[in-house]
Amino acid sequence: MLIVVALGGNALLRRGEPMTAENQRANIVRAAAVLAKLVNTGHSIVVTHGNGPQVGLLALQAATTPDGRTFPLDVLGAESAGMIGYVIEQELGNLLKERLFATLLTQVKVAPQDPAFAHPTKPIGPVYDEATARRLASERDWQIAPDGDKWRRVVPSPKPLAILEASVIAFLVARGVIVICTGGGGVPVIAREDGSLCGVEAVIDKDLASALLARQLKADMLLMLTDVDAVYEGYGTPGARALRQVRATEISGQDFAAGSMGPKIEAAVEFAQATGNPSAIGQLKDAVEIVKGHRGTLFGP
Amino acid sequence: MLIVVALGGNALLRRGEPMTAENQRANIVRAAAVLAKLVNTGHSIVVTHGNGPQVGLLALQAATTPDGRTFPLDVLGAESAGMIGYVIEQELGNLLKERLFATLLTQVKVAPQDPAFAHPTKPIGPVYDEATARRLASERDWQIAPDGDKWRRVVPSPKPLAILEASVIAFLVARGVIVICTGGGGVPVIAREDGSLCGVEAVIDKDLASALLARQLKADMLLMLTDVDAVYEGYGTPGARALRQVRATEISGQDFAAGSMGPKIEAAVEFAQATGNPSAIGQLKDAVEIVKGHRGTLFGP
Repeated sequence: MLIVVALGGNALLRRGEPMTAENQRANIVRAAAVLAKLVNTGHSIVVTHGNGPQVGLLALQAATTPDGRTFPLDVLGAESAGMIGYVIEQELGNLLKERLFATLLTQVKVAPQDPAFAHPTKPIGPVYDEATARRLASERDWQIAPDGDKWRRVVPSPKPLAILEASVIAFLVARGVIVICTGGGGVPVIAREDGSLCGVEAVIDKDLASALLARQLKADMLLMLTDVDAVYEGYGTPGARALRQVRATEISGQDFAAGSMGPKIEAAVEFAQATGNPSAIGQLKDAVEIVKGHRGTLFGP
Repeated sequence: MLIVVALGGNALLRRGEPMTAENQRANIVRAAAVLAKLVNTGHSIVVTHGNGPQVGLLALQAATTPDGRTFPLDVLGAESAGMIGYVIEQELGNLLKERLFATLLTQVKVAPQDPAFAHPTKPIGPVYDEATARRLASERDWQIAPDGDKWRRVVPSPKPLAILEASVIAFLVARGVIVICTGGGGVPVIAREDGSLCGVEAVIDKDLASALLARQLKADMLLMLTDVDAVYEGYGTPGARALRQVRATEISGQDFAAGSMGPKIEAAVEFAQATGNPSAIGQLKDAVEIVKGHRGTLFGP
C-alpha cells in the first residue's frame, strides 16, 4: 500500500519544548522508528511534515540580520524543509540501511486571490504571553492570535492547488525510493500572468498539502500523525467520545474549529471523498495499528 | 552531453554584497539565464552550488536563539541548500517551463579521521576587519583566517568520499529531470561503527564534491563557474597569463594556493584524470563558450 504519512509539527517537537537542534533530532528519532515499522510492514511511504515552530524561529533569527530585514516566508519555508527533511532522511536511513531516500524541495501553487491572504490563521514560531505577543505584533507588523492559553504569530495559509514536483515524486516512488517532501506544506508560489512562478508570504497547511499530494500520487491512504489519539466528538467536554470510523459524507460540511484538528479533518474528508481511499488521524506511536484500522480515526468515502 | 555545473558562491553573491534575500535572488536570476542557455544548447545539466556566505550568516542568526546555542553546521548546511536550491529551481524553471526539476538534499560521506577537522580552512559568513574577527573568535570559539585584506571565520573542510544520493540523482537525470543538488558541497556525514550516519561540524568544498558527483554520475564534463575568467599562471603579477588548455598530468602535483582557486584546480584535475573527460573553470557569463572550448580554462586528462 502507498501511504502518504504527514508528521504533525507536534509529532516533531512536543508542545512547550524549546526548538533546539537536539530536541528536534530526538523527536525525529522517535518518529523515524515508527515510520521504519510501517516500511517493514510492507508499505511504501512518502513522508511529509509540518514546520510551524521551525519556520517561526527561522523568521525570528533572520530578523537579526545586519540590515534588520527578515527573509520572506517562502525562502524561510524552503530553509525549514531542508533542515527538517535532512534529519528525517538521516534518521530513517539509519533504520532502513538498504533503502534509497530523496528529500525533495516542493513548490505548491496557491491562488493570488486566496482570501487567506487577508485573514491570517496559521500559527508559527514560539508561544508568547498576551502582552509580549501584542508588543511584538506592533513592533514587527505581525498578526497574532490566541493558541490555547498563549498567543502566537499567525500568517496567511492559502489553499494548496497543485504540488508542482508531483510527477518527479511519482517517478521516485515507482523506483522504490522513500521520498520526504512537501515539508511545512511546501513552498507557496503563485503563477504570474506569463506563467512564471514567484514565492509568496504564507505557510500552507501541511495536512491539506499532504491530502493534495496523496491525490496526485493516487496513494492508497493518507495518514496524519499527531499527539492526539483520535478525533473526538465533544473534545474537551466530559462526554468526549473518540470517533473510530467516520464516513466523509456524514462529516463533510460540519464546521470544525480552526487550529490543529480542523485542517486535519478537512484534509481527511477531501482525500477520502476524492479518491474513495481511506484517510486516518491518530497518534504517532499507534501508526501501524491505525493503518490496520485498530486505532485512531479512520475516514472512509 | 551531461554536464555537472558548479555555481561558485561568488557567482551567487558578488564579493562585498550584503547577504539579503533580494541580492541572492537577483544573482540567481543572472545565473539561471546562463544555465537555461546551456540547456537550450542541448545539454543535460546537474546544478551544484556553494553556500559559504549563506551558511555563515545562518550560523550567526541561529546563535541568536533564546538559549544562545547555534545549530550545528550539518543542519545549517541543509537549511542553506533548501534556501538556495529553491530559488535556483524556481528561477531556472521560469526560463524552462516545459522541464521537470528536483532540488535534492545531499549527504556526503567524509572520514572521521580527516586531518581537516584539526585544521579548519573553509571561510564562511561575512568578512570582518581583523580586530572584529579576533574579538568574535574569542567570544564564540571560532577559528578565523585572512581572506584577501579582510578576515573570516573558517571551518573544517574534509575531503568528500561518496555522494550518498548519487543513484537517486542518476535515476532523475535519466528521466530528463534537471537536478539541483550537493548544495554547499552537501551535508557532511560520517559513518559510525554500526554503519549508521551522523552529521559533522564541517562545510565540504563544493568544487571537490561536484567533481566526485560528476564521477559518480559518469558526467561528460565538470564545469565550475566563478567570477574569474580563467586560471592564470602568475595570478596577481604583471606577467599573469590565462591558461587556455591544461593537461591534468602536467599540472597535477603542483602546489596551488588554498582559497577559491586551489580546490577548483584540484577538482578539475581529479575529474579529468579519473574519467578522461574534460573539466573547465571560467566566468559565469561565458558558460556556453567555455563548453565549446572558446573561453575559460579547459583541463584534459
